[in-house]
Amino acid sequence: LASKLPDVGTSIFSVMSQLAQEHEAINLAQGFPDYDPPLVLREALARHATTPGHQQYAPMPGLPRLREAISHKTALVYGVPAPNPNTEITITSGATEALYAVLAAVVHPGDEVLVLEPAYDLYGPAIRLQGGKPVYVPLRATDFRPDWDLVAAALSPRTRLIMLNTPHNPSGAVLTEQDWDTLAGLLAPTNTLVLSDEVYEHMVFDGQPHRSALQHPQLAERSFVLSSFGKTYHATGWKVGYCIAPPALTAEVRRVHQFLTFAVSTPTQHALADVLAEAAHFQALPAFYQAKRDLFAELLRETGFDLLPVPGAYFQLARYHRISALPDVEFARRLTTEVGVAVVPVSAFYHDGQDAGLIRFCFAKEDETLRQAAQRLREAA
Amino acid sequence: LASKLPDVGTSIFSVMSQLAQEHEAINLAQGFPDYDPPLVLREALARHATTPGHQQYAPMPGLPRLREAISHKTALVYGVPAPNPNTEITITSGATEALYAVLAAVVHPGDEVLVLEPAYDLYGPAIRLQGGKPVYVPLRATDFRPDWDLVAAALSPRTRLIMLNTPHNPSGAVLTEQDWDTLAGLLAPTNTLVLSDEVYEHMVFDGQPHRSALQHPQLAERSFVLSSFGKTYHATGWKVGYCIAPPALTAEVRRVHQFLTFAVSTPTQHALADVLAEAAHFQALPAFYQAKRDLFAELLRETGFDLLPVPGAYFQLARYHRISALPDVEFARRLTTEVGVAVVPVSAFYHDGQDAGLIRFCFAKEDETLRQAAQRLREAA
Ligand SMILES: CSCCC(=O)C(=O)O
Ligand SMILES: CSCCC(=O)C(=O)O
Repeated sequence: LASKLPDVGTSIFSVMSQLAQEHEAINLAQGFPDYDPPLVLREALARHATTPGHQQYAPMPGLPRLREAISHKTALVYGVPAPNPNTEITITSGATEALYAVLAAVVHPGDEVLVLEPAYDLYGPAIRLQGGKPVYVPLRATDFRPDWDLVAAALSPRTRLIMLNTPHNPSGAVLTEQDWDTLAGLLAPTNTLVLSDEVYEHMVFDGQPHRSALQHPQLAERSFVLSSFGKTYHATGWKVGYCIAPPALTAEVRRVHQFLTFAVSTPTQHALADVLAEAAHFQALPAFYQAKRDLFAELLRETGFDLLPVPGAYFQLARYHRISALPDVEFARRLTTEVGVAVVPVSAFYHDGQDAGLIRFCFAKEDETLRQAAQRLREAA
Repeated sequence: LASKLPDVGTSIFSVMSQLAQEHEAINLAQGFPDYDPPLVLREALARHATTPGHQQYAPMPGLPRLREAISHKTALVYGVPAPNPNTEITITSGATEALYAVLAAVVHPGDEVLVLEPAYDLYGPAIRLQGGKPVYVPLRATDFRPDWDLVAAALSPRTRLIMLNTPHNPSGAVLTEQDWDTLAGLLAPTNTLVLSDEVYEHMVFDGQPHRSALQHPQLAERSFVLSSFGKTYHATGWKVGYCIAPPALTAEVRRVHQFLTFAVSTPTQHALADVLAEAAHFQALPAFYQAKRDLFAELLRETGFDLLPVPGAYFQLARYHRISALPDVEFARRLTTEVGVAVVPVSAFYHDGQDAGLIRFCFAKEDETLRQAAQRLREAA
């Protein structure tokens, strides 16, 4: 049996979580909170789990009431016309399924897809599984923002899609209105589509807004915009995300979605629909996560880690060259097994494993967890 | 944007459920029960939904305790060595995701995949999305069992995989030990793999056993065996299934699964793990569904429908030539809109839409629902 992904091992997130468990390390590796979803949401799931008639297949594109709630929320948050729930919104098994469905729907064999690196580890393999060719464009080494000249140079008549991620995992870099304008200008003469992975949309700091591809009319026309209830509701284990795209693009995503998973947990969709109108929850997230970012940075101030600025998302990048000259994979492993703090080596976000001496901490953790982790790190560094 | 599945519309199951809703028809089309999962299971989900710490990512291959429970159950039910939960069992977002993941993992562009028709509507498109070529082999028109000579003739050096489904949707036909022996003989000199879709494993009637590919040592070595908690626990809306396969095959499925959906709802997996050891539930299913089969057949006895034998699954096929000469799609539509009973035209299970004048009723319904539907059908036919 010839593997279609011979070079792909178990995802770094699983590997590090496993290692963390074996060594009873504090897991700041895989990106998930160590606190629970809001009680009102968990109680909603409990209620729908026992509600007669809520246990069978949801409609393939998602529960109408959840799609309507997403439509309202999107209009409210981004000041855009409400996406049509019937033709522009599809509920998926996490943003992961949405990503894969978009790629499976639009990437034909031989197509090129631009990926700005570092990038989430599924982008490249998922493109290759469609017979597509990932074309990697480095983000700027200083601030992980796109160098649009490099993007322009990488565009070709075969570029089917460009994948963007804002706020960016692992760096937290956020795209600005001007970035989107520049991209729109580059794409105007092309048929290239846009996949905008915005799962950290509610985690942008220092008073900056998250700018969605949906807010740029010319881009919205050609974009698949993804988000994730797992991130927004501290419920990564619920596996519900969604894709917003114009009707013609949504039709293609659904063609694939109906064969990939068909539908998403009905009681879970009902529970999310119950709470989505309550804007206070997501409006509080930027301050909530900014406080964690600042606390963690403060706790690591006296260590040899050089912390990079974190404009968004819930990850802290750190350079460790003052502490160790080890390759990042080895350094991450030692931190996990010897210091008791699991982290992700940033080389895992590069297709060629290039190593810039950076590790990633997830700070979506109880303050007490961050304190304990910092304590261990301070002792070791 | 050139569609990759230009000929694929919305799945017939969604179309008919939608039409049923619009016309307030009794929905015997899409295959799902109109009763709920066992209360103990729903209460388990409610409990885990509110359990702190059960709301984040499950491990990528599934919760260990659920995989262990599946392993025990499989050994118990089929009298086979317990599959290794670490290396041979993967939890997926319904059997649908398992099907897609297997195809994405093993079908290389240009590979042929044998599909015995009529077949579930995702088989063909999901093969084509991998660049594979579905090779359709008709089941016997009389009893929908494989004609192994035709299968033998369709095998080629390019045949990567053969897809089997027992009990069979839509006909209910079940494979026997002798069928598996014959298949094993045909495949012995080849590298062809087997996907055995056994989601209706607990619905085989008249005292017959379900024979799993797992029970045939030579086949088990090359098989992906799929099942579905949705079917076994009346919880189609929970979207949890699984794939059992030898370690080398499981490794390939997981390589894809980690990028398709990554993981499955954590609280839902916990709930299923809580109840799986209770064998009484699934041991009662054959009698439970046989009674429904028999009731529905009895209710339709005085009508012009000719009912085909139903050895397994929860669908009743009916020939309607004594009632109408309409094409099956049109007849199904009229039954839905004019008689108030939604059904599926069997032509939807053929890649070329061939029409044998058959419709499919789902009898996974409360007896009262079956009575009401039969009442309407009797008045009309
Ligand atoms: C699906 S596990 C990875 C979670 C995540 O988004 C990350 O750690 O970057
Ligand atoms: C995923 S909807 C289809 C349900 C089903 O298995 C059927 O009706 O055949």
